Amino acid sequence: MADNFIGIDLGGTNIKIGCFDTQLKMLKKTSITTDACLGPQAVVEKMIAAIGGLVKESGFDLSCISAAGIGAPGPADYKAGIIINSANIPTFKNVHIRQMLSDELRCPVVFDNDANVACWGEYVLGAGKGIKDMVFFTLGTGIGGGIVSEGKLLRGSDGNAAELGHIIVQTNGRLCNCGQRGCAEAYASASATAKRATEAIEAGDKSSLKTVLEKNGQITCKDVYDHLAKGDKLAKKITDETAEVLAVLCVNMLHCTEPERFVFAGGMIAAGEVLLDRIKYYFKQHIWKIKPEDSVEICFATLGEDAGIIGAAALAKSSPENR
Amino acid sequence: MADNFIGIDLGGTNIKIGCFDTQLKMLKKTSITTDACLGPQAVVEKMIAAIGGLVKESGFDLSCISAAGIGAPGPADYKAGIIINSANIPTFKNVHIRQMLSDELRCPVVFDNDANVACWGEYVLGAGKGIKDMVFFTLGTGIGGGIVSEGKLLRGSDGNAAELGHIIVQTNGRLCNCGQRGCAEAYASASATAKRATEAIEAGDKSSLKTVLEKNGQITCKDVYDHLAKGDKLAKKITDETAEVLAVLCVNMLHCTEPERFVFAGGMIAAGEVLLDRIKYYFKQHIWKIKPEDSVEICFATLGEDAGIIGAAALAKSSPENR
Repeated sequence: MADNFIGIDLGGTNIKIGCFDTQLKMLKKTSITTDACLGPQAVVEKMIAAIGGLVKESGFDLSCISAAGIGAPGPADYKAGIIINSANIPTFKNVHIRQMLSDELRCPVVFDNDANVACWGEYVLGAGKGIKDMVFFTLGTGIGGGIVSEGKLLRGSDGNAAELGHIIVQTNGRLCNCGQRGCAEAYASASATAKRATEAIEAGDKSSLKTVLEKNGQITCKDVYDHLAKGDKLAKKITDETAEVLAVLCVNMLHCTEPERFVFAGGMIAAGEVLLDRIKYYFKQHIWKIKPEDSVEICFATLGEDAGIIGAAALAKSSPENR
Repeated sequence: MADNFIGIDLGGTNIKIGCFDTQLKMLKKTSITTDACLGPQAVVEKMIAAIGGLVKESGFDLSCISAAGIGAPGPADYKAGIIINSANIPTFKNVHIRQMLSDELRCPVVFDNDANVACWGEYVLGAGKGIKDMVFFTLGTGIGGGIVSEGKLLRGSDGNAAELGHIIVQTNGRLCNCGQRGCAEAYASASATAKRATEAIEAGDKSSLKTVLEKNGQITCKDVYDHLAKGDKLAKKITDETAEVLAVLCVNMLHCTEPERFVFAGGMIAAGEVLLDRIKYYFKQHIWKIKPEDSVEICFATLGEDAGIIGAAALAKSSPENR
C-alpha cells in the first residue's frame, strides 16, 4: 500500500491542505475556512475531517499517511509544538497543535513557522532547487523569512530564527506593528507600501492614485502597481522605496548567511519584473564592491500559494534532523 | 608520542602562534612580526621557523603536529584556501596559504576568517561554552563577526558569511570603508567611535576631549572611554551612539539566526561594564516585546588576544564537517 504525506498551511482565514505521494507529487488539495472562533478543538476536528476526505479522494485511507507537516504563523514554541499566542489566530492560545494532530492522524507530525515551511517548499521543489544556501522572503501583510544554510532550515535556538521582516534597516525609523522601529516590514510589506502611498497623497502629492483613495477610501498595494504600469510618478517613487528596502535586506542577509540565491514570494510579487528589476538595481547600489554583485541571484518564487502545503509535506518527508 | 595542534593568527602587523596539546591546553605561544613586505614565501618560511621553535620548546618536533589552523582577514576564498586580496596584508595576492603550510608542516591545515576563528575559540573554550547558538562580534578598527548555529560555524556559500560589521543599520547613512553606506562598522567600530568624537569637537561640541585632540592631533577610542570615566558629556553621547548601533546589530541577528548569547570581543571591550550596560539598555529599547528580552544574553569575550590561536587550534582539532 502506497504511503502518503500530508501538508497543512494553517492561516488566520483559510486552512490549505494537500495530499502527496512519496515523490511529493500532489494528488489532491483543498482549502477550508479556519473559523478560529470555534476554538482549537473544533478547528482541529475540521482539519482531520478534511484530511480524511482528501486521502479518500486520493484513493487511500488515514492509515496510509506516513507523516504530516503543518506550518502556522508565529510566534510559537516550534520545538515543543505549541502555538502560544498567534496574532493571526487569536483563539489559539497554548495549543499543543502537533500533539493534537499526531494523536488524531496516528503518525509523526512536523510543526514549523509558515514562512519556514513555504521556504522549504521552494527550496525542495521550486526556486531553490539545486543550491545549498538560500534566503527566502514572503511579501504580504508582513514580511516573513526563511533561511536554508548548507541544505538545512536554520531555526535558531528557540525555533524563531529568520524573522527577516523585523531586521532594522533604519534605526529609530518608522514604527512597525511588532513594536520595533525601522523594521524592513514597516516600509516594504504590501501593507506598508500601500500605507506610504496613502500618506503621500494625504500630504498633497499628485497621483492618479488619489481618485482610488477617494473612491474606495483606501489604497492597496495592487493599486500602487496598477498605477505604476500606467506611468504614475508617485507609484514609481513608492515602488522604488519598497525595492530599496528589500535590496538592503538582501545586502544584510548576504553579509549574514551568504546565500547563493534570494527568493521573493507572496502576493506582492504579482507586481512582476518591474519590481524584481528595481530590487536588483538597488542591490547593486548598496552592496560592497569587494565581491562581484552578480555572484548572487535574486529571483521570484515559483510555487505560488501551494508553497506552504508542498513545504509542509516535504518537511514531513525529510530526514529527522530537518524536521 | 603525544600529538600537538598548532593555532596561527595571521594579522597585518603580527603573527601569533600557539602550540596546544590534545586537550587544547596551551603549551607555548609566541608572536612574530608579519613583515608582509618580504612577500608570502618569506612570511611562510618565518612562520614555519617559529612553529618549529615553539614545538621544540614544548618538548616535541614538527612530526608530532596532528593538524594546524590559521585565521586570516578576508576577503579570501576560504573553501579553496587562498588569500585573494587582503586589505590588511597587501602583498598577499592569490596566496595558496593552506597548501603552502600543509606542504611545509606535512599535516592537514584548516584556513578560515580571523573573526570566525576567534569566534570558534570563544565558543569552544571561552564565553560560548555550554550553548549551541552564538553570535560573536570583534570591535576593533572594523567590526568582525562570527555565527555558531547548532554547534557549527556558519560559513555561507563561499565562506564569507558573518561579515556582521557590514550589516546596514541606517539605509543611506555614513559611508563605510567597504564602500557601502550605513554599515554598523561605519558608526560603532573603535575607529568610527573615535571619528565621531573628533567630528563633534570640530563642529563645536564642548568636551574635555578637545585638549586631547589639540595635543595629539587625534582622538582614539580609548580616549573617549577615558573621558567617559571622568564624566565628559560628549564622551557619554558618543558611547551611547556606539552602544545603540551595537544593540541594533544584536536585534537584527536575533531575528536572523536567533542565538542564545551575543559575545563582544576586541580592543573596545576594554571600556568595560559601562559599555556593556549601555548595549543591554539599547537592546531592551529596540527589541520587540513579543519575546522576553532577557531570554538572550549579551556578554564580553573571555579569552582576550589568545582567542584567535585557541580557535585556530580548536578548528584544527574539530570534526571534519567543522573545518
